[in-house]
Amino acid sequence: MTKRYAVVLAAGQGTRMKSKLYKVLHPVMGRPMVQHVVDQLNKLELEKLITVVGFGAEKVQDQIGGTSSFVIQEEQLGTGHAVLQAEDLLKDKEGTTIVVSGDTPLLTQQSLEALMNHHDKEGAAATILTANAPDPTGYGRVVRNQQSDVEKVVEHKDASPDELGISEINTGTYCFDNQALFKTLKKVSNNNAQGEYYLPDVLEILKQSEEKVSAFQTGSFEETIGVNDRVALSQAEKLMKKRINEKHMKNGVTITDPENTYIERDVIIEQDVVIYPGSIISGNSVIKEDAVIGPNTEIANCVVGEETVIRQSVAKDSDIGQRVQIGPFAHIRPESEIGDQVKVGNFVEVKKASLADNSKISHLSYIGDAEVGKGVNIGCGTITVNYDGEKKHLTKIEDDAFIGCNSNLIAPVTVGKGAYVAAGSTINKDVPAEALSIARARQTNKDDYAKNFKKPKKD
Amino acid sequence: MTKRYAVVLAAGQGTRMKSKLYKVLHPVMGRPMVQHVVDQLNKLELEKLITVVGFGAEKVQDQIGGTSSFVIQEEQLGTGHAVLQAEDLLKDKEGTTIVVSGDTPLLTQQSLEALMNHHDKEGAAATILTANAPDPTGYGRVVRNQQSDVEKVVEHKDASPDELGISEINTGTYCFDNQALFKTLKKVSNNNAQGEYYLPDVLEILKQSEEKVSAFQTGSFEETIGVNDRVALSQAEKLMKKRINEKHMKNGVTITDPENTYIERDVIIEQDVVIYPGSIISGNSVIKEDAVIGPNTEIANCVVGEETVIRQSVAKDSDIGQRVQIGPFAHIRPESEIGDQVKVGNFVEVKKASLADNSKISHLSYIGDAEVGKGVNIGCGTITVNYDGEKKHLTKIEDDAFIGCNSNLIAPVTVGKGAYVAAGSTINKDVPAEALSIARARQTNKDDYAKNFKKPKKD
Amino acid sequence: MTKRYAVVLAAGQGTRMKSKLYKVLHPVMGRPMVQHVVDQLNKLELEKLITVVGFGAEKVQDQIGGTSSFVIQEEQLGTGHAVLQAEDLLKDKEGTTIVVSGDTPLLTQQSLEALMNHHDKEGAAATILTANAPDPTGYGRVVRNQQSDVEKVVEHKDASPDELGISEINTGTYCFDNQALFKTLKKVSNNNAQGEYYLPDVLEILKQSEEKVSAFQTGSFEETIGVNDRVALSQAEKLMKKRINEKHMKNGVTITDPENTYIERDVIIEQDVVIYPGSIISGNSVIKEDAVIGPNTEIANCVVGEETVIRQSVAKDSDIGQRVQIGPFAHIRPESEIGDQVKVGNFVEVKKASLADNSKISHLSYIGDAEVGKGVNIGCGTITVNYDGEKKHLTKIEDDAFIGCNSNLIAPVTVGKGAYVAAGSTINKDVPAEALSIARARQTNKDDYAKNFKKPKKD
Repeated sequence: MTKRYAVVLAAGQGTRMKSKLYKVLHPVMGRPMVQHVVDQLNKLELEKLITVVGFGAEKVQDQIGGTSSFVIQEEQLGTGHAVLQAEDLLKDKEGTTIVVSGDTPLLTQQSLEALMNHHDKEGAAATILTANAPDPTGYGRVVRNQQSDVEKVVEHKDASPDELGISEINTGTYCFDNQALFKTLKKVSNNNAQGEYYLPDVLEILKQSEEKVSAFQTGSFEETIGVNDRVALSQAEKLMKKRINEKHMKNGVTITDPENTYIERDVIIEQDVVIYPGSIISGNSVIKEDAVIGPNTEIANCVVGEETVIRQSVAKDSDIGQRVQIGPFAHIRPESEIGDQVKVGNFVEVKKASLADNSKISHLSYIGDAEVGKGVNIGCGTITVNYDGEKKHLTKIEDDAFIGCNSNLIAPVTVGKGAYVAAGSTINKDVPAEALSIARARQTNKDDYAKNFKKPKKD
Repeated sequence: MTKRYAVVLAAGQGTRMKSKLYKVLHPVMGRPMVQHVVDQLNKLELEKLITVVGFGAEKVQDQIGGTSSFVIQEEQLGTGHAVLQAEDLLKDKEGTTIVVSGDTPLLTQQSLEALMNHHDKEGAAATILTANAPDPTGYGRVVRNQQSDVEKVVEHKDASPDELGISEINTGTYCFDNQALFKTLKKVSNNNAQGEYYLPDVLEILKQSEEKVSAFQTGSFEETIGVNDRVALSQAEKLMKKRINEKHMKNGVTITDPENTYIERDVIIEQDVVIYPGSIISGNSVIKEDAVIGPNTEIANCVVGEETVIRQSVAKDSDIGQRVQIGPFAHIRPESEIGDQVKVGNFVEVKKASLADNSKISHLSYIGDAEVGKGVNIGCGTITVNYDGEKKHLTKIEDDAFIGCNSNLIAPVTVGKGAYVAAGSTINKDVPAEALSIARARQTNKDDYAKNFKKPKKD
Repeated sequence: MTKRYAVVLAAGQGTRMKSKLYKVLHPVMGRPMVQHVVDQLNKLELEKLITVVGFGAEKVQDQIGGTSSFVIQEEQLGTGHAVLQAEDLLKDKEGTTIVVSGDTPLLTQQSLEALMNHHDKEGAAATILTANAPDPTGYGRVVRNQQSDVEKVVEHKDASPDELGISEINTGTYCFDNQALFKTLKKVSNNNAQGEYYLPDVLEILKQSEEKVSAFQTGSFEETIGVNDRVALSQAEKLMKKRINEKHMKNGVTITDPENTYIERDVIIEQDVVIYPGSIISGNSVIKEDAVIGPNTEIANCVVGEETVIRQSVAKDSDIGQRVQIGPFAHIRPESEIGDQVKVGNFVEVKKASLADNSKISHLSYIGDAEVGKGVNIGCGTITVNYDGEKKHLTKIEDDAFIGCNSNLIAPVTVGKGAYVAAGSTINKDVPAEALSIARARQTNKDDYAKNFKKPKKD
């Protein structure tokens, strides 16, 4: 098989983004644009993948380091000049080089593969990835000859009326015979208004040398869009969202409103999961069979067990068991481990805590830095007092304990197996197993006292 | 009038749904697809409605039992074979039989009625419901003759270039003369690649017998879509949502973003209600005049009174009065009764409780298993301690009582009319009317104590 | 320059809105429709802007008072009659009068300006604002003559097949030579089915007098839509939302899902702000550079500082500093001032309180009517007991104080600088600086007590 190389153009500034963040680092569904491009290219069997960096070079390298080699374009002298920076790394190679812009995050492995296959099959010196544009205004039109090869590419402003009628456009992604590419790049001049070296000029020079330039048309125009401002960024986000959601739906996930459901690319969702609107699932989350997520739930980097239901809640960086009920309005913070059949109810925060099977925290509680056993019932308003102004301490609640409402557990403290803490108690000493612990004042009723001091209430 | 019968085809497995749930039971806007079909058919004046069940027969019968008769198709031998299962129930009948697939949840009574009327008027042996498809690829094309009757139906793969140009497609819904239907079904063979008996073959046989086959074209292609995978399911959901929301808007309800508002079919909404985005209203909810719902509010099976405002909250199976303020971030759980002008503020949970007029629970409280009188002020952090680890008990708070912040009311307990509970008290004995009740420790200040033990704080 | 006048038609009832609210007062993105129209007109250099009011006249005047003059149309006798009500104020004027309907909230200054410029340049007696309708059904078609002026406007029902093929429609917005307008209006008759005086009849009379009637076609049909029912209202809302969001995105704001983000017109958002879905930003809010808003966050009339993050929360009428962390599930109520690097965590309500730099309220607290110093740590479950059933009192917490969990601060009360309140204390006397204050009962453990009375737990 022909050896394959890739050059990713990621050196431009992207002034229309109006951002301190370097253009190709703007995320689409949580992942920088250039990372999408590099990830798709890395699924092809490439000998080498080189990213040309310039503006923000260091941050781009930080992002995609390990998945790409780099060359630096010190001055922004055009796309042709950018590719030329890879010459040292590629000039001795025989094979096919694909050149992709780092701001085309929607291109798929399938299209890139098809482009390279077409190029190799045609034996062309260069091949353009083209698409049928619903509205080709502003794009370069691809004029084909009788052999269906490329006769020329005409910029919109230079096009004749007939050429303006062409809807097949140049997407800016190309394959080249590697040797032809670098030989020809040297002939490209910067004798133009911007004084830049343009990569597409290679095509014209090749044509002049009677080399074959072919075109491969992808079926999906949407896949080829380049992101130059944040309006386009939001369109890319929408298309990526749709693509991911359709994959899950075809795999047997119900997404009741895919336009209002945001799932990042690496999330795994098993069959018969149901996701309600307004939900965001990101990172390396895994949602297991028959779980129900949403509405309005945000989950990041969590494993969610079978038949677990999470509604109107936020959960991050935690493991959640099977048949768990979470929400509405619960917050599972990082490093929590929640066992099977646990209930975490409304207005409950769990942070860096383990809750073993069948325990319940039904309302208005904060359980942080804690180890909670099985079958524990934590009453409404319970607080683990984990911070003394200086450091955090651990609370242990053993199996089958019962914590009365509005209790404070001042850590470090242990409530023993089967122990019972009376409602309204502040506990600062360990409670032995099976003991009742109480710490509260006796109630006094002062008759008619309220009558004497009360006035009509106002808001 | 001609007598009318209906057969609903609901026996297929629906493998492309990739689900343990039987295909026609997948819900669209909260209601199983087949139930939508049966409900629309039941609005026609039918003599008999028969659903053919197979895979998951029991669960389908559970769902639509009472609204349909059933026959069982033991083996999945094709749509013709499916209809034939109804023979025993229908063979003696004179009249018109409509055959509808259980996976077409968007068909309306109006279209089904119009189809049957057309059939009767034309005196046809069979009538096809057709539609103009924006993209007919993959559909069977309806070729009409000079009388505008059906000449034939051509499958996409068998169509000539001219026929491929036809955009009128066979939707798979049919009317038949009942006698002609069953007589002809017996002539259908399974001599085809799948070895199945196909219902559309009836049309061809009728044509060969020089019977009249007519076509009725509905104006709405969207209404006729069949749901075969979860992508189509989400499209059906979107169309059903739009249909329901437009009905309400035309009736005088403001829905600021109907694409992001989810209202089930049986919800009643009165004039001048305003619904903000991200809201979900389901079940038998009734939202009365001038109420304001949302954003991001979920209401199920609630009556919501005039001018009541519910924001960023969840309410289920409860009655809510007039001019009530709920939310943001409140949770009204089942069996609650909330009087007029009540306030339920942020981070408040109400469960199986009655709150009489003009009472307030403004923040961070749990009121469960309680009867709260009129004009009661429940301070922030109040908890009804309704559960002792064994069973639930009732809290009564009588009219005009004032419950201080962070109080525990240990049920069973009664706070009398006009009584006052001091902040931070745990109350486990009844408080007489007009009494002040207090249960807390005296405050001690230890001078300079904090200076001695405090260190610089870290997070 | 020609002097310019405007007449806004805002007298109709709008029965299809089915509303107690007068039609032109229905809001689009938070602002009444007629206010949008008046605001755009006021950006032109008008001599006079007159709004014709009728139904609900008082409320319309309340809304746009100060931005428009008014005349009252006592009886609803048609659009021509409506304009005639402005005669007393305009009849002596020379110049151009633009007539705009109060239910066209999407018209922009640019289009109105272009219309008036075209009118003046053409020297026409009248000029129609036209648009190219994707589906012109139901609209009046504009038939042009050889000079590209208006030959006539034909109503849909009166149009010939050729005329039905015209897609250029009359949008109902017009410019007139002011003298010609009022002279001609008097010739308009009400000899028609409705018995009304129609403004468009002026055009026909002018044509009969061989006056020039020109047409100016806007590029945006969408801009010209009139809102007659709430379905159209929701469409106007959607278009206005899109217009506002695109403006922000082009200015360097990331809006990950602009279809699910609702920003009112006067909100200011700086560069590199990121807004996640389900967010609503309204009023005079200002969101400063690098802030992150959402998901599902509602902000009204707040200033939000640089790099501040607000997630799944509600904030109203408050000032919020830099690098503040709010949410998820926090509620900032009016008149709050939040300093830099403050944390307001989950299930926290802040009301009419100032929080100085670096203070933290991480969970489940209510801080209302309070002044909180710098570097204060407010423990989980802290409540400012600000209301005694009669009036609200102030709580002061001085710099570097530490409030233990589940404390009640019974206002009026001051916790001094660096003081420490023990968890579970109810504080009703001032705490001196650097003191430790404690108010709680001693803990008692009763061995084996729990064993004796506990039974198996049920839910």
